[in-house]
Amino acid sequence: MNGAIVWLTGISGSGKTALAEGVAERIGSARALEILDGDVIRKELSSGLGFSREDRNINVRRIGFVARLLARHGVLVLVATISPYAETRDEMRRLAEAGGTLFLEIFADRPLASAIALDVKGLYKRALAGEIPHFTGISDPYEPPTHPDLWLKTDQEPLTASLDRLLTLLASKQLLQFSSAHSSQL
Amino acid sequence: MNGAIVWLTGISGSGKTALAEGVAERIGSARALEILDGDVIRKELSSGLGFSREDRNINVRRIGFVARLLARHGVLVLVATISPYAETRDEMRRLAEAGGTLFLEIFADRPLASAIALDVKGLYKRALAGEIPHFTGISDPYEPPTHPDLWLKTDQEPLTASLDRLLTLLASKQLLQFSSAHSSQL
Repeated sequence: MNGAIVWLTGISGSGKTALAEGVAERIGSARALEILDGDVIRKELSSGLGFSREDRNINVRRIGFVARLLARHGVLVLVATISPYAETRDEMRRLAEAGGTLFLEIFADRPLASAIALDVKGLYKRALAGEIPHFTGISDPYEPPTHPDLWLKTDQEPLTASLDRLLTLLASKQLLQFSSAHSSQL
Repeated sequence: MNGAIVWLTGISGSGKTALAEGVAERIGSARALEILDGDVIRKELSSGLGFSREDRNINVRRIGFVARLLARHGVLVLVATISPYAETRDEMRRLAEAGGTLFLEIFADRPLASAIALDVKGLYKRALAGEIPHFTGISDPYEPPTHPDLWLKTDQEPLTASLDRLLTLLASKQLLQFSSAHSSQL
């Protein structure tokens, strides 16, 4: 089966990782799949990089490089990383498509106020207290996608509903081999 | 077919890249294969890193991380990088094997005098003139493997002979699906 890059972008707490893990759980062993999680990649490939625009972009490019390597060997790569700059996400799409790899941009769209209210990791509290510099949405920009392949308003529907829509998209692109991909019973 | 990591180590000019490319050429499209070349990885994943022991080790660990990702999706990963420190190569083997991935260490062994005499890239001349600090073999250490899975004395046999022996090793590990893997006619 063809590989592809499913690039989940959104602010911290928007649900990127939950979406990636939900897709992985539903697909199970039905096809080759890999999650490239921003936090893991920071540790494995980008120690020493900070959160300036330049460093964030270098980090995103490294993720894109690894994602393309995997995707061209048939892996469905789920990237879950803030990737705040539209230009750099677009660059990742161009590079993927230039190599014949399908690239889907998925916008995990949770309004900042909602992410702050939830604050699952307690990071917003610290960022608002000025303890974390360069924090996306607080002291660093986030440029939302203007034409994502899928726009998930993660504060307005349960995770299962977002997953249904994401799996339906993947099935429509022939990325899944089972027909009931849109069923939440999977 | 199972993936694996074939880790080619040796000084600059020892023939690592030629061996990796030779294997890729002979295997063709018979199986999933990827070359992770040290020079490419430096650019794609390790810009900003230098050549201190610590930085070299970080670079090697990044290569190992990507190699393991690919190998667990069935890719035969050919790593061609100096990777001068035995301890770090051993660490890469341990991490691969811990994840159930076969790891083969291949020593591209060309004596320093021979590499200097050839000096294909003109780097030794510059290193000997003191223009390149931290140059392996000249101003930086190289720790040869003590028990490599294959020891190729690349100054004592033609590339085709080294390739024959490397392909034979891969075939013996069930990493190739064709039976005449050891034939230089491939």
